[in-house]
This record gives sequence, structure tokens and C-alpha cells, in this order.
Amino acid sequence: MHFPDLPALAEPDLAARVQHALDHKTKPLGALGRIEALALQLALVQGVERPVLREPQLVVYAADHGLSRRGVSAYPREVTPQMVANMLAGGAAVSVLARQQGLRLTIADCGVDAPLAEGALDLRVAAGTADASTGPAMSAEQARQALHQGMALVERLPGNALLLGEMGIGNTSSASLLMQRLTGLPLADCVGRGTGLDDAGLARKLAVLAEALAANAAAQSPLEVGTALGGFEILTMAGSVIAAAAGRRVVVVDGFITTAAVALAEALRPGVLAACVFAHRSAEGPHARWLDRLGARPLLDLDLRLGEGSGAALAWPLLTAACALLADMASFESAGVSNRD
Amino acid sequence: MHFPDLPALAEPDLAARVQHALDHKTKPLGALGRIEALALQLALVQGVERPVLREPQLVVYAADHGLSRRGVSAYPREVTPQMVANMLAGGAAVSVLARQQGLRLTIADCGVDAPLAEGALDLRVAAGTADASTGPAMSAEQARQALHQGMALVERLPGNALLLGEMGIGNTSSASLLMQRLTGLPLADCVGRGTGLDDAGLARKLAVLAEALAANAAAQSPLEVGTALGGFEILTMAGSVIAAAAGRRVVVVDGFITTAAVALAEALRPGVLAACVFAHRSAEGPHARWLDRLGARPLLDLDLRLGEGSGAALAWPLLTAACALLADMASFESAGVSNRD
Repeated sequence: MHFPDLPALAEPDLAARVQHALDHKTKPLGALGRIEALALQLALVQGVERPVLREPQLVVYAADHGLSRRGVSAYPREVTPQMVANMLAGGAAVSVLARQQGLRLTIADCGVDAPLAEGALDLRVAAGTADASTGPAMSAEQARQALHQGMALVERLPGNALLLGEMGIGNTSSASLLMQRLTGLPLADCVGRGTGLDDAGLARKLAVLAEALAANAAAQSPLEVGTALGGFEILTMAGSVIAAAAGRRVVVVDGFITTAAVALAEALRPGVLAACVFAHRSAEGPHARWLDRLGARPLLDLDLRLGEGSGAALAWPLLTAACALLADMASFESAGVSNRD
Repeated sequence: MHFPDLPALAEPDLAARVQHALDHKTKPLGALGRIEALALQLALVQGVERPVLREPQLVVYAADHGLSRRGVSAYPREVTPQMVANMLAGGAAVSVLARQQGLRLTIADCGVDAPLAEGALDLRVAAGTADASTGPAMSAEQARQALHQGMALVERLPGNALLLGEMGIGNTSSASLLMQRLTGLPLADCVGRGTGLDDAGLARKLAVLAEALAANAAAQSPLEVGTALGGFEILTMAGSVIAAAAGRRVVVVDGFITTAAVALAEALRPGVLAACVFAHRSAEGPHARWLDRLGARPLLDLDLRLGEGSGAALAWPLLTAACALLADMASFESAGVSNRD
């Protein structure tokens, strides 16, 4: 399967020029902390000294999972289409936040087990994946379709920023399976309580996911692993991440499931991580561990565990602030302020 | 000295109603983490089920310090009026962020050692405090004047939110002294590198601050401690914090120096902390320790150490998001979404 080439997102000359500009702003050296690092990253992603964020797109990738029939979630399977409808009607957290932050919201149906909702974008592969506890979650052809549709989606969206969101009852299970295979960590280190499992529910989830790993032990390459254990929304998202990085768009990563998509994208096309800003550290247990593995330091740490892109939307103002500070702060010279000796 | 009474900011009935509303929003229980706690706090501060933030005011309290003549800062004393001018001209970090976030910016000159800048608000007590290493930083009359002016300022500002900012070369020294006396911690645990002291500078700062503690050992009550060791901007800010809490305005606290003002205000009028949202944990060493002592959990942790109110401005969108989510998210019932069993 062919993925686009990535531009060089780490140009030392450009980085030096941006760092020089940051260091001469009217503030003690480095006093804006991680906001300065963020400004530098955005400059490198766009390949310019003064990055400008235009027409940010928040896409919620929604799909159902065969595993949700195995009791791996605290919520029933029909909540996926119900929440899609709620998002489209404006009542979900991500709807409220997207409105408030000026983010255009797209709900992409990548394979919900219900008819296409009015107002949703049709990227449906099938009505939910197969049960990964007995074999691959999807066929190789379905995986290719999802990845392609994710790439094509980004190529036709305007703007230069993609914020990742997702919806799919059971998708923390898929993310946990991908984490186990992509990191090699023990399964127990890759599994959390999702939307709120109790101890018995967590034990059941672990047992089912162990079955899924055994049933898909033959999957080896990143593409095979994604095919065997992924969800349609996760593979579509991975395609979008690759296309976004290739097109010098910044990708704002939300929680555990969007991190799975990004990690899969990085395995498929190494280098995409440079275009990714990690919005927050989720309260879903394994997320912090995976971020560490990826060398990612998220902006927020607010005990969020909702998904939907809600954390990405909450972090968005930090990105626009970083650009504004880089563009509009005075230098010591221009403002006539004495620098330290 | 008389301070206004505080309203009851913790009404159990109201808290229960708001928590019920949060718990029935279309999301797993508690999935918005600390944003839910923030929404609840804002409701309690305003005394309503659906808090609305109006006309937020970012006030930068500026003043000079006698201690800055003793080499306690990496920057020369004249930077205070230069930065005030930069803020008024729109080139400082806080100017950029206030513009971007829709915060009205007021620069209150509480005692800068230079003529009043055009566009600054005249709350001048004197041209900088006296040298606290040889005796009290100000007279009892000056302390009362600063506190009163801070209260009066808030009473005439519109809106229901006060974001705290400050500017004053040497004011981390004053904040460290207040921290030592208000917490009883060893001085070394209360002192950081400020705008960027090296090891020799830090040792000099510690020695000078030890002199200041010895010279003002007679100060006992919170008002006496503030008078002996405070800055004009810190006491003015403390007055503003008390008036804001009394008037059911939320106070957004920035970094180490604004925390000193809030801690002093809490010592003068216990209860004001309930109205305070702590924006961020500063990279100034002792700030984290002081937050712990106050039982405060800041929203952001981005290695900021600029002051000016920059961290408060960066955190502001989280407050508006919390209000929007509480007001506009659908409930499971209204959206027809199945809740967990």
C-alpha cells in the first residue's frame, strides 16, 4: 500500500531563526516554557517563521466494533449511533466545544452499525468490524479502503489543522490491542476501564482481549496488525494523520484511541509524529504509558477520559496563543526594554 | 482595618443540583475530569446553576521594590517602567494574550519608580517600596492605602471575573518573604531563580532575604507581615482579591507573585480561596510547594515563569469552556442516549 512522502519537518536553519525570534521577545529567556516549544513546532510543521492556523477541522471518526458484543464496555453498542446523532444535534461535549472554539466539526461515519445519520459524512466500510476475539477485525481490502478514505478526506478539507476525535463503543479495546502489539508491553499494561468498567468488567475485558491477541497472533507488519485488531475509525484516522503530515497540517491528538491511530500511522509512515501535538494525558490508565513510549508530552493533564475530540478542542486555544505570541510580541530592541547583562 | 464580609461560597443544595446536572450530561460519569470540578466551582462562586462569565478583567498590578537595589534580580530596576510601557503599547505577552482572549487589560501603577505612564491607572502609593532588608517595606498607612485602592478598583470594574497579573522587578523576592512568614517553611524552600538568576545570584538573593526576615522579625499579624515584606502591587492585589470574592467574582490566579497576594488575602480574610481558580503551576521553584500548602490544584503545568498574568490568560478558555459545557451539553434523557445499566 502506498503512502505519500513526508516533507522534512525538522529544518535546522528555520528552527534556529524561530528560536532566535523567541529568545529576543520581551520576556526572560524561556519564560513561556512549553508554549515556546509549541510555537517552534508549529513553525516547523508549516515550514515558516510565523505560523498561522487557518480553518481548523475537528473530525470525529465513528464506527462500531465486533468486540462490543463481548461485553467489553460499560455502555451498550447502540450508544454509538445515538452519540453520533447527539453530536450532529449539537448536544455532545465535542459539539459544544467546537462551536465555542470556532472549529468546524465533521462527523465521519467510518462504519457505524446503523443507517447513515443525516449530516454525517459517508466513509462507511461496513456496519462494524468483525469480532476480533475469533479472527481479524476486518479484511485486508477493508483496511486499505479505510486508510485511503482517511487520506482522501484530509486532502479535500480546507485549512491547515486537523483535530482528531472519535466515537465507538468498544474502541478502547481495539486501542489496547494495538498498543500491545505496537509496543510489546504486557496486555495488562495496555488496558484501562474505558467508559467506567468495574473490577469484574475489567477482568472480562482483559480475558476477551487475550483471546483476540491469540486469535490474531499471525499478524506481523503494522498494516497486518491494524487489519487484525483495528477499528474502521482507527484506520481511517491513521490515513488522515498520514495525509495531514504529508500536507504540512498540524494534527491535534486527543486521548487514548486517537493516540492508537497516530501510533499506527507512525508505524506505517515513520515521521508523522513530528506533525502531532498531543492535547492531553487521559485518565484512561494506559494512555500515559503510551505517550511516554512515543516521547510525547501532552499539553493538558485534566483527568479527561471522554474522547470525541473534547481534549483536542480544549487544548486548541494554546496553539492559537502560541502563534499569536510568536507573531505579535515585541522584541527587547523594538520595545526599548533593557535586557539582562 | 475593615474588610467586607464574604458570601457563603459553598452551598450544599446548589452544589448537589449542579453535580446532578453534570452527572446526567451525555458522557460517562466524571469523564470531563477537572473541567467538571471547575464548572461546579464557577457555579458556587456565582451562586447559580448556570454560571456565565461576563466582561473578564485582566489587571496587571505594577510596582517597584526597594530590594531590587540589592541585586536580587537578573534584570535592572528600570525594566519595570519599560515593561509597563511595552504592555500599554501592546507588545508584551500579556497584551497579546489579552487581545486574543477578549480580556480587557488594565495596567494599574501601584508604585512604579518612574512618572505615571500614559494609559496606566494611577493607584500609586509611592515610587517603589523601601528596602525591606533594613526595615519595613512600607508604612502601615501605605499598606492600608494599597489594600483600599485594590478593593475600590474591583468595585468599579465591570464584569464578574478578575484575572491577576503583575510586573515589578524584584517582586519574586517579596513573594518569597511573604511565603516564608505565611507558611513557616525554611527560607530556602521559598526562594527561586526569578527571571533567571545563576547560582551566585541565587545565593546573593538568599542572603539579602535572610537580612530582610531578620530586620522585620517583629511583624506578626498578616497585616504586619504584608506591610513589612510586601510590595505595593501585592497589597493592592490582595485588596482586589478580597473585594472580588466578596462580590462573587471569580479570581484567576497566575503564578508565584499573584499566589502571594492571594495567600495574603486569605490570611487577612479567610475564605477568599473559594473564589480562586489557580491557572498554572509556575516553573518558579517554590510555587508548586505553596500551591500544595494552599490545597490548590492548578489547571495548567506548562513550565511558565513569566508572570504578567500570562498564565491566567492562557487558562481562561478552560473557564469559558466549563461554563459552556454545563449550559449547553444535552442530558441522556434529552438526547435519547442509553445510559449504562
